[in-house]
Amino acid sequence: MERDELFALLDAFEIETPSWGYADTGTRFGKFLQPAAASTVEEKLQDAGVVHRYTGCCPSVAVHVLWDFKPGTDPQEVARLAEQNGVRIGSINPNLFQEQVYKFGSASSPNDGAREEATQHVLDCIEIGRATGSDWLSLWMADGTNYPGQDDIVARKRRMEDALKTWHDAMPENMTMLVEYKPFEPAFYHTDIADWGMAYLYSKKAGPRAKVLVDTGHHLQGTNIEQIVAWLLDEEMLGGFHFNDRKYADDDLTLGSIDPYAVFRIFHEIRNAAEEGGRDVSQIAYMIDQSHNLKPKIEAMIQTVTTAQELYLKACLVDRSKLRDAQSRMNIVDAEECLREAFNTNVKPLLHEWREKKGMDAEPLQAYRASGYEAQAGAEREAARKERGEVATGSYA
Amino acid sequence: MERDELFALLDAFEIETPSWGYADTGTRFGKFLQPAAASTVEEKLQDAGVVHRYTGCCPSVAVHVLWDFKPGTDPQEVARLAEQNGVRIGSINPNLFQEQVYKFGSASSPNDGAREEATQHVLDCIEIGRATGSDWLSLWMADGTNYPGQDDIVARKRRMEDALKTWHDAMPENMTMLVEYKPFEPAFYHTDIADWGMAYLYSKKAGPRAKVLVDTGHHLQGTNIEQIVAWLLDEEMLGGFHFNDRKYADDDLTLGSIDPYAVFRIFHEIRNAAEEGGRDVSQIAYMIDQSHNLKPKIEAMIQTVTTAQELYLKACLVDRSKLRDAQSRMNIVDAEECLREAFNTNVKPLLHEWREKKGMDAEPLQAYRASGYEAQAGAEREAARKERGEVATGSYA
Amino acid sequence: MERDELFALLDAFEIETPSWGYADTGTRFGKFLQPAAASTVEEKLQDAGVVHRYTGCCPSVAVHVLWDFKPGTDPQEVARLAEQNGVRIGSINPNLFQEQVYKFGSASSPNDGAREEATQHVLDCIEIGRATGSDWLSLWMADGTNYPGQDDIVARKRRMEDALKTWHDAMPENMTMLVEYKPFEPAFYHTDIADWGMAYLYSKKAGPRAKVLVDTGHHLQGTNIEQIVAWLLDEEMLGGFHFNDRKYADDDLTLGSIDPYAVFRIFHEIRNAAEEGGRDVSQIAYMIDQSHNLKPKIEAMIQTVTTAQELYLKACLVDRSKLRDAQSRMNIVDAEECLREAFNTNVKPLLHEWREKKGMDAEPLQAYRASGYEAQAGAEREAARKERGEVATGSYA
Amino acid sequence: MERDELFALLDAFEIETPSWGYADTGTRFGKFLQPAAASTVEEKLQDAGVVHRYTGCCPSVAVHVLWDFKPGTDPQEVARLAEQNGVRIGSINPNLFQEQVYKFGSASSPNDGAREEATQHVLDCIEIGRATGSDWLSLWMADGTNYPGQDDIVARKRRMEDALKTWHDAMPENMTMLVEYKPFEPAFYHTDIADWGMAYLYSKKAGPRAKVLVDTGHHLQGTNIEQIVAWLLDEEMLGGFHFNDRKYADDDLTLGSIDPYAVFRIFHEIRNAAEEGGRDVSQIAYMIDQSHNLKPKIEAMIQTVTTAQELYLKACLVDRSKLRDAQSRMNIVDAEECLREAFNTNVKPLLHEWREKKGMDAEPLQAYRASGYEAQAGAEREAARKERGEVATGSYA
Repeated sequence: MERDELFALLDAFEIETPSWGYADTGTRFGKFLQPAAASTVEEKLQDAGVVHRYTGCCPSVAVHVLWDFKPGTDPQEVARLAEQNGVRIGSINPNLFQEQVYKFGSASSPNDGAREEATQHVLDCIEIGRATGSDWLSLWMADGTNYPGQDDIVARKRRMEDALKTWHDAMPENMTMLVEYKPFEPAFYHTDIADWGMAYLYSKKAGPRAKVLVDTGHHLQGTNIEQIVAWLLDEEMLGGFHFNDRKYADDDLTLGSIDPYAVFRIFHEIRNAAEEGGRDVSQIAYMIDQSHNLKPKIEAMIQTVTTAQELYLKACLVDRSKLRDAQSRMNIVDAEECLREAFNTNVKPLLHEWREKKGMDAEPLQAYRASGYEAQAGAEREAARKERGEVATGSYA
Repeated sequence: MERDELFALLDAFEIETPSWGYADTGTRFGKFLQPAAASTVEEKLQDAGVVHRYTGCCPSVAVHVLWDFKPGTDPQEVARLAEQNGVRIGSINPNLFQEQVYKFGSASSPNDGAREEATQHVLDCIEIGRATGSDWLSLWMADGTNYPGQDDIVARKRRMEDALKTWHDAMPENMTMLVEYKPFEPAFYHTDIADWGMAYLYSKKAGPRAKVLVDTGHHLQGTNIEQIVAWLLDEEMLGGFHFNDRKYADDDLTLGSIDPYAVFRIFHEIRNAAEEGGRDVSQIAYMIDQSHNLKPKIEAMIQTVTTAQELYLKACLVDRSKLRDAQSRMNIVDAEECLREAFNTNVKPLLHEWREKKGMDAEPLQAYRASGYEAQAGAEREAARKERGEVATGSYA
Repeated sequence: MERDELFALLDAFEIETPSWGYADTGTRFGKFLQPAAASTVEEKLQDAGVVHRYTGCCPSVAVHVLWDFKPGTDPQEVARLAEQNGVRIGSINPNLFQEQVYKFGSASSPNDGAREEATQHVLDCIEIGRATGSDWLSLWMADGTNYPGQDDIVARKRRMEDALKTWHDAMPENMTMLVEYKPFEPAFYHTDIADWGMAYLYSKKAGPRAKVLVDTGHHLQGTNIEQIVAWLLDEEMLGGFHFNDRKYADDDLTLGSIDPYAVFRIFHEIRNAAEEGGRDVSQIAYMIDQSHNLKPKIEAMIQTVTTAQELYLKACLVDRSKLRDAQSRMNIVDAEECLREAFNTNVKPLLHEWREKKGMDAEPLQAYRASGYEAQAGAEREAARKERGEVATGSYA
Repeated sequence: MERDELFALLDAFEIETPSWGYADTGTRFGKFLQPAAASTVEEKLQDAGVVHRYTGCCPSVAVHVLWDFKPGTDPQEVARLAEQNGVRIGSINPNLFQEQVYKFGSASSPNDGAREEATQHVLDCIEIGRATGSDWLSLWMADGTNYPGQDDIVARKRRMEDALKTWHDAMPENMTMLVEYKPFEPAFYHTDIADWGMAYLYSKKAGPRAKVLVDTGHHLQGTNIEQIVAWLLDEEMLGGFHFNDRKYADDDLTLGSIDPYAVFRIFHEIRNAAEEGGRDVSQIAYMIDQSHNLKPKIEAMIQTVTTAQELYLKACLVDRSKLRDAQSRMNIVDAEECLREAFNTNVKPLLHEWREKKGMDAEPLQAYRASGYEAQAGAEREAARKERGEVATGSYA
């Protein structure tokens, strides 16, 4: 592939960062606090703007309605804030798990009140999307049960089907609903959208603008994620991704930190669908959803973004005509080596060149560090929290 | 539930045993040989007849075409043989993995010859089904790849779709095609029918008489199998089961030997679909597919069959109105205890009564052992093998 | 086994409940609050007393030093409080994960301050143990790393070895140190005490009063936990248990709710060690550590306790001479049926009789519910929280 | 690290190939046959010689006594054969699983005859080792049980301890015993040497010349293998490796084909032990044990060997002083980037240079292919099999 083509592919490869990725988060055992962590939507958008400035490929920000749009917030004001920071509002993420009413689920709950509140909240989210110009409604449901017999699995399925249909039909024409699946946590017996097959069926029933969202950390050990991606692309049902990495469960580590070759293979399937299958892959929503409790938040985000670019670029380098030929000869070693060779290529020089051509620093992480942003933000934000009378605590006990 | 209802449910609960379950099988490290293991289709049907005689619920026998219908065999002759042993021919199982031509797969292979041979073999199987009066074509495909890049996942998917459609359309009206899924082994990078979602989509595309087959050992660790069963029933896509148990991978142990509560929960979902959801569950094909290399074959089969009866009966005992009530009150402990109480019930007396009422011995395993069948079969079969000049070996090296 | 022997075994089977199991806890996505959840050490000990009153086998309470012994608390006062509620202080549990200083670990941290604080806290815990008459120091360390390269695994191992040796040597003669292992969470790349082998080696190096603690939820999928228990018993290194159940990760569900046969097999190995191996099993510390976010706390505790009794009793019922005989004949089916028969026995009548003989209600859960305790505690505690000006929240955001 | 140092490290990095890796092997579903697959020990040693000629780092060959030393074979004759092919006899591998007597295990079997046969076979192996000048006795035991209760886990442990001690003491002074562990397969309930902790304890009890063997495919999903390696090195108990890769179970794929970063991290821990911990790592036995049923055998072996070299070299490139500094500053991102930078380095040019300096072709696989060896061996071996009257079959049925 020629340099120009590769640069065009890089130009088109945009990654959305999440507002909640700039705030303090933790495990169930507590949070480790960072002075520079963002507390307000202003601070989050400011940080997202910084990441976009240094990487050049993160123009949109996923927002979490409950945390970013406190009652009384004017969505258009938030959109303007984003714009001031050089970014725009991306996917709208409802919160259907935090309120006490969701104890037994949201859309699948046997509790009428929970289902009504869920629907009202999603309708509000759709309005926010409309007001902020967002095209994406991104749904992760924590629904499920913790014990055998706790609830009727099929009754819950029907409730979920109904809700998704209702929500789908309430969306404006330009909006796409992303349906995320997850095998467990926080529900530990069953989850109502446990795997891609369930997300697929729910989406099909909801309507033509519902697609499946693949979170790379939401699979049982051993799952071949790239095969699922290939299938969803072939069925025209892939909506997008939540990027992160994991070794055990939904560990939410930075992308490629544990198994970079697996991430490369996902991108390989996407490029394969585009180049061999003639699929339109331009509408795939690439989004980050990681929880970097220990790494500095902006550094972790830049690390994930640049890793995604590197692995995507490597996947673009796979020699597809050579691969096709080896596959048709059923020569496993030759076919495999096409992937390995691309993966083993050092793509940093190419990325440096692309960045410099776009007026950015070749090394985003170093440039960001050199800017002194974190120290300054840390000082300012600590002062602001003090002024607001907030006492940070990492304990949940 | 009243005794009469329970007995009627037991009457309707039939389990098919597999002809290959009476023959010597092993792991990739070798086979441990049993003198009484069946070598010929006559011996296998004889053994299947014995299991049915002592359990009263195994009237049909799954056959493996490659092993049971050697070239020149008249299928109707085999059907008569079955009849003489008090059983009938059940599901027809093609073999699409053993021939050298299937090195890169069968229906999904890039090798035209492999695909043609696979189709010819399946058409032969359908003819055998027709000739033997079988209603079931049961498909397990070993198709997949061992290395990233080895073949194009989507091209393989398309080939599989085409084959299944062709085979579906070649079946007579009364025949149902069962599509089995498996996440790995013998393919270790990807399998072409890896999970229930893929089996579902293939079946939908093949046609109305294709349904999904759930082998209880074919799931990644942690998979909630009963949820998959509930979903397939709700989508009217559950074809049947291959029963066995496992602790690690596709271990093919006898049913309920590792996790009996999990098996109970599968039956619970089936009874729930019937009693709460009004689903017709009478057409579910319950079949055994286990590889008991160490246990005596007939004993292992009887153990699995009686365990299945016990766990099914326990599931029938779940107090569904109490359960529904607890679920509607969102009282987890009460709801869960409905399942636990049924599971903890000692159902042996009920089963003894049912067996005696049907003129069988209350304790099938003990009665079988008392018959001296194994020792006699062992002596006869060893002599017969000697006469045929066969030298048994457990080694594959 | 005779009824008297069984009753003597039940008499000796004591289970410790954890103070934190009576308080509100949650997942990383939030907490669901219960009005009757205990907030203060007084309330926790009161609840523990209630569980002991209804079950008759929970005379001691595990305490969590950070949460139960706020600065200024007189440990002997807490011991007296326990006594007033009919229980005593059991294992002392340091908290080595919640403070910000533990961001990179406690005993294994490269941060000198963290290690010093950890040691000071453990020494305080030992003092509390001395003051409250406790014989157990129970250590769960969240130490580990989240990313490859983050720290030197061997350097961390050495630091942990040093700390455990220091702590061991600071304990009074009557005290036993329990070393718990866990494969992941909250550390997601490696944990410093990842499996039983590591806990064993650390304990050996710490000294003769250090033993391994087995938390039933702290294993990778597929681990044969009962084998680990059998090995630790044979090596005289089993200290005790944290009971809970799980389907996926460290789900902290109530015991036996997912796989009761697996729990039974653990008890079987313990009884086997006692009866066949002549091991002294009287010093095993049976403790509960579950997080029942949805079930009412005391109900969940009673459910786990009575389930443990039932499964332990079933294990006592295994006919060991029959089992030994079948094993020596290498008859797998006979040997296995010894376990299955015991597991399938309905032991409730026996337990009812034992309870009534001890002056308790035959059905602890029903008796507890009939007492109206939860409603009353809920009302009182809500009022108390209001008076203290506490505003409960389930959100961590 | 300087080029000379790196080349010296490469010089010292020797990998043993297994004789059985040149023969046809398969899964439990059958074997796919290759014309050029080796049948005789002569052919196997010839192939091993070819691999060494093209890679320059495989001077020894692991032998499998049952398959390579048929009764009447003079071991010294085999050693001479090896020498003629430019290689030497490496580890001696007993076969303790294939004979019918091992149905219930070998060293752990309750069957006296099995244990005696096992001991006799191992003593024979030690003699062969003595006669061929081998320093390694490599033990993989398939021992275990398939069903709960089948045998007494502790009795089996004791039998294994006795056998290993006996075998250890029968070894000449120069010989090291390698004790391999595996969590499952072919035993599916428990294996007698299930994890590194058990292998460690057995080795300690056997004597000072027993060490643990790590097969990279013998772990439960999620296991942090590099941590185990670091621990064993720190305890001076790491004997060596069986290299292969896997995605699901013991898939026996070529090294680094699924997760190359994980292999790199293993080498990183070894280099860390050498450079930071001052450990002597020169005695680690690096061996291949893979089953490449589909790839041409010699190609697969060369692929694994060159991949091992590449990943080892990358681990040598980790900037350890930079890493130490980042770790001491607790800067996770910096520390992690030390590993990532080394892993992402293209080491092929260095390896090419090293090979050319040693008089080899820069690209072993291409050079081997250009030689036409496989076609010629295929033709000759097919003819030889025909002459010997052997009919190859891939079926086990």
